[in-house]
Amino acid sequence: MARTIELRSDNAAGVAPELMDAILEANVGSALAYGGDDLTQRLRDVVADVFEHPDVSVYPVASGTAANALALSALCPPWGSVLCHDTAHILRTECGATSLLGGGAVMTGVPGPHSRLAPAGVEAALMATRWGDPHHSQPSVLSLTCPTDYGTIYTPAEVGALAETARTRGLRVHIDGARFANAVQALGCSPADLTWRAGVDALSLGGIKNGVMNADLIVCFEPALAESLMYRVKRSGHVASKMRFQSAQLVRYLTDGLWLRLAEQANSTMRRLATGVEAAGATLLNQVDVNMVFAELPAAAIDQLLADDVLFYRMSDTTVRLVTSFQTTIDDVDEVVQRFQRAIAAC
Amino acid sequence: MARTIELRSDNAAGVAPELMDAILEANVGSALAYGGDDLTQRLRDVVADVFEHPDVSVYPVASGTAANALALSALCPPWGSVLCHDTAHILRTECGATSLLGGGAVMTGVPGPHSRLAPAGVEAALMATRWGDPHHSQPSVLSLTCPTDYGTIYTPAEVGALAETARTRGLRVHIDGARFANAVQALGCSPADLTWRAGVDALSLGGIKNGVMNADLIVCFEPALAESLMYRVKRSGHVASKMRFQSAQLVRYLTDGLWLRLAEQANSTMRRLATGVEAAGATLLNQVDVNMVFAELPAAAIDQLLADDVLFYRMSDTTVRLVTSFQTTIDDVDEVVQRFQRAIAAC
Amino acid sequence: MARTIELRSDNAAGVAPELMDAILEANVGSALAYGGDDLTQRLRDVVADVFEHPDVSVYPVASGTAANALALSALCPPWGSVLCHDTAHILRTECGATSLLGGGAVMTGVPGPHSRLAPAGVEAALMATRWGDPHHSQPSVLSLTCPTDYGTIYTPAEVGALAETARTRGLRVHIDGARFANAVQALGCSPADLTWRAGVDALSLGGIKNGVMNADLIVCFEPALAESLMYRVKRSGHVASKMRFQSAQLVRYLTDGLWLRLAEQANSTMRRLATGVEAAGATLLNQVDVNMVFAELPAAAIDQLLADDVLFYRMSDTTVRLVTSFQTTIDDVDEVVQRFQRAIAAC
Amino acid sequence: MARTIELRSDNAAGVAPELMDAILEANVGSALAYGGDDLTQRLRDVVADVFEHPDVSVYPVASGTAANALALSALCPPWGSVLCHDTAHILRTECGATSLLGGGAVMTGVPGPHSRLAPAGVEAALMATRWGDPHHSQPSVLSLTCPTDYGTIYTPAEVGALAETARTRGLRVHIDGARFANAVQALGCSPADLTWRAGVDALSLGGIKNGVMNADLIVCFEPALAESLMYRVKRSGHVASKMRFQSAQLVRYLTDGLWLRLAEQANSTMRRLATGVEAAGATLLNQVDVNMVFAELPAAAIDQLLADDVLFYRMSDTTVRLVTSFQTTIDDVDEVVQRFQRAIAAC
Repeated sequence: MARTIELRSDNAAGVAPELMDAILEANVGSALAYGGDDLTQRLRDVVADVFEHPDVSVYPVASGTAANALALSALCPPWGSVLCHDTAHILRTECGATSLLGGGAVMTGVPGPHSRLAPAGVEAALMATRWGDPHHSQPSVLSLTCPTDYGTIYTPAEVGALAETARTRGLRVHIDGARFANAVQALGCSPADLTWRAGVDALSLGGIKNGVMNADLIVCFEPALAESLMYRVKRSGHVASKMRFQSAQLVRYLTDGLWLRLAEQANSTMRRLATGVEAAGATLLNQVDVNMVFAELPAAAIDQLLADDVLFYRMSDTTVRLVTSFQTTIDDVDEVVQRFQRAIAAC
Repeated sequence: MARTIELRSDNAAGVAPELMDAILEANVGSALAYGGDDLTQRLRDVVADVFEHPDVSVYPVASGTAANALALSALCPPWGSVLCHDTAHILRTECGATSLLGGGAVMTGVPGPHSRLAPAGVEAALMATRWGDPHHSQPSVLSLTCPTDYGTIYTPAEVGALAETARTRGLRVHIDGARFANAVQALGCSPADLTWRAGVDALSLGGIKNGVMNADLIVCFEPALAESLMYRVKRSGHVASKMRFQSAQLVRYLTDGLWLRLAEQANSTMRRLATGVEAAGATLLNQVDVNMVFAELPAAAIDQLLADDVLFYRMSDTTVRLVTSFQTTIDDVDEVVQRFQRAIAAC
Repeated sequence: MARTIELRSDNAAGVAPELMDAILEANVGSALAYGGDDLTQRLRDVVADVFEHPDVSVYPVASGTAANALALSALCPPWGSVLCHDTAHILRTECGATSLLGGGAVMTGVPGPHSRLAPAGVEAALMATRWGDPHHSQPSVLSLTCPTDYGTIYTPAEVGALAETARTRGLRVHIDGARFANAVQALGCSPADLTWRAGVDALSLGGIKNGVMNADLIVCFEPALAESLMYRVKRSGHVASKMRFQSAQLVRYLTDGLWLRLAEQANSTMRRLATGVEAAGATLLNQVDVNMVFAELPAAAIDQLLADDVLFYRMSDTTVRLVTSFQTTIDDVDEVVQRFQRAIAAC
Repeated sequence: MARTIELRSDNAAGVAPELMDAILEANVGSALAYGGDDLTQRLRDVVADVFEHPDVSVYPVASGTAANALALSALCPPWGSVLCHDTAHILRTECGATSLLGGGAVMTGVPGPHSRLAPAGVEAALMATRWGDPHHSQPSVLSLTCPTDYGTIYTPAEVGALAETARTRGLRVHIDGARFANAVQALGCSPADLTWRAGVDALSLGGIKNGVMNADLIVCFEPALAESLMYRVKRSGHVASKMRFQSAQLVRYLTDGLWLRLAEQANSTMRRLATGVEAAGATLLNQVDVNMVFAELPAAAIDQLLADDVLFYRMSDTTVRLVTSFQTTIDDVDEVVQRFQRAIAAC
């Protein structure tokens, strides 16, 4: 029987050893609950450093959905709408969390190539709005998914252009960064350039898909929203009692570039994998910016690969999604590429 | 300088070593996210065994507030009210989480001695209701905190009597069991007798205050509510991606009585502590059923104890709250009692 | 058979002839819907005049519950609590409307004599709050019912003292004035003195109980809240398409003191009624400030009066509530008093 | 100066004389508030007759938005989604009312020709759903706008086919019938055939656009939803105190076919108008099923018509929307057609 290789999702990976060490180290003595501990205080300072922003506020939460919906609930009035891409996670895959926690706020999908919003699309949505007319949900936030759910990213300049378009009509700007480390690593940019310097008010900073145990982080660059977030996080049940175990991980994650090294492993193995499966005869369907590829290949080859202990999602008869993580190794990739070669060759 | 001894809250304790081991063991290989893993499947079976109920459904969440508000949102229609004690955590200390997640459901405080509801109080609240009149919030759930926030508990017979009173008018019954293990251990009863056999529909089963890292559990005994809970948990951001780390802990916690042994340590050290501080001259203010005591002593003695590195909450000039946990040792207790003796004697 | 006399509620009265005329006059030609008509523009100016406040904004709505819940939803953040009297209509008789429209905001009942809040009671509630602690709903609005549901009122000085107490901790102030005209008429004060000059931010100005057909009015003295209200009123379905028929009535109602004359009829017939039934042997249970009295009399007398075609609410075996309206006449009162005399004498 | 002719909206029309009479007749004596009056009881019976359904429940509300959002909040669980056409009023023009009152339920737009949904479009939306996956909002209601906001209608057979498609996946079915009388009149069908016999669970039955003063009606064919609606209507502030004035109108409206005669006036004047403006040289842009036409004509002609005291909405440089109402006369139409002739001829 072949060695099982995991390419379903970076969510399926475990916890990075460095972060598990941080958890173990945090489990000494007692500490005030609900964020009154030293590690949570330190987390704020570390984020302020990494994002070069002295006034950030931070809120560890249990999931990316929580980070997104809570950040958006603070950015958007209940009568507002959140503009996002047609394929955005907040619109398609969070079961209306933003509408629940946002007091009935709505989300409006906007089309755009490569799963990305373009200024023209956003502008069209803004132009179509009847501003100040209470019959119409008022666009109040632009939410960018970066990386997108289809493996593409925005550059700091692109975020800046979109944010500027949005800000001319008074919208706030949010980034859903469930895989934010992968984007920053791929771009080689500073986290500040991709966020607040480009006009972003709040970021859902993912950790979980990149080795953290069940802790993502809301990073808020706009001090006026901090009070609202504090209460919103609590009343949705996301103020963890033993917050130190979330904070310990996130401090370690963001210190000395660990988060980018973990992302680098996922990104670079994906580049190798995409090159390999393309060479094997599959057609790549997306621009491979980070750790995710969609590919087309014969149905029979897909059947063979699934029988062959390669774990991945089949999107249709002839298309697959492959995702690498910080745990994916070069050996994994080379082995998978060989199985692709054999499976496609056999068709 | 004296050794610091922690008596502020069982929330301040860390993670039990057995549970940390379970986390480490779960961190091998990859696993489907969002509860698709084997450990989460096993968790349901373990709970079914422990509660002797084949049809339970279970939902790990990140906090007790989440467990309470989500369970209540499934039990109570938006136009309903949740009857609870005047001092209930859901009413006083969760920032309206139940009203948020329950679509504007309200909570109605009912008085009762020892922080506990009595059938007469519940009956009076039910009698005062204008049933079927849409101007009036309709009592729809009875929520019992067991143990209460003042360290008292309900027996299975008491839960049964209250539940029966509630059920005559069609109310559902919920237990907020943030310290449920402490109650079960103190009562020596079966978990089933204190819950569904007494008429309880859903339980917030606390783990966090008893050594679990940020995972409490909604246990639902009523199959008709399972679908609602599945979606509600998700859209509040409480379906953890790496759920296996919550489930691994909760499986271990509930296996071979570990949860009760941890609770026994907290309960028994509290009994020793309560006896000791009373002998030292403090007046106990509550019935010490589990791991919490409220005591009265001279203000100067409290000042001295705080200076003396005993960590606890001062409720007023002359009253304190002391809480033990699974980490509290007999040595801790004996040392604290000596400091109480000295501090009170010096007054 | 005796003539039926209506004393159940001022809600049971019809529409005042002057207001019906205003409706008929408004039904000429066509007009822009949703408040784009001239009458609605004029309504704002009339309210600005009557309340001597140039920056009011006004929102006709279909019920007092709508006025209260919408005003409070704009005044209170979702994580806030609305302090009100234990007997307040918003707490007891609106089925949680404020929690629904306020995004899960909660209401906190505060005791006080004569169904009225006193500064000491409010202060105690504020002192008991853990400010800035996200576990605790933050008192954010003080809502006064004036007149109360038990027929008592606050003077401008009393409103001012309560508002000052509230404002020291940053609370907004709201008046539920379902019978506001009755209070203003009884006090002989200016509407401004009883509201914004005393520190009130928003008023639910009742019209319906005083002869208006299904239109109450939110009067907002705080311009910063106007935008929020505009959208909130719409998305709760309270922007009437043919708003001109609401506005026409409210313009007429507030012009040339009609509202106070209608209230004077209710108040003065109540004074005569209260005097009469007391002389007949009933015991008055409340201070009769406006158009409502609660009285105690023998159960058999109540039975007789109900058989005798006097319409009123029996609150218990031996207590009744009597309410007059703009339609109640001196003849009605004298006839009822005679029936009371006979009924009590027969016991 | 030319006579002003109103074609902006049927919302701009006034109240039908027969309905004003009903109001005046209802203003005699007193009556129990909140629907306890005889007229409201009679309303239910009249609706049961007209719809040939013995178990309907009815809820007068102040606007079409209220009727839609409240009906949908009872039909759709908070985690559900309401499928509707991309151009539906509930999606585009109600400021998220359904998400507010539905506890965060979402709406999903589906494309379709002539502003109408087709079974294939609904089927595609259902096929794209990941049923039972809590990450995805679950389609729970199909809402049809009939007539649509672009003047087209569904036949009973079309409603039936769509409802059947929806019901195969367990969806409930709702009709937003803000102009329902116009559809029934145009189709010449029975109200029952267009609703419950075709599989519809609840109907927003518009009255306001057809001569009723601020009262639309929720008609619920599914008894299991009646309790939920009763409370939901109340807590959104839509239980009018003097409900008899709403009910009196709606009883008259639905008696002896008045509603259809009023609609006939609007529909037939529109047919004449559409024929006339087309003959004058304008291009009709929609199928004119009821009382609304969209037309294209030279920009200069539109300028001229606006200057010429024809009131209508300009949708773009060269397109207009014209709406007739029960108040539109043949003279109005003939006069408008002449102005169109002159204006277009002059280009």
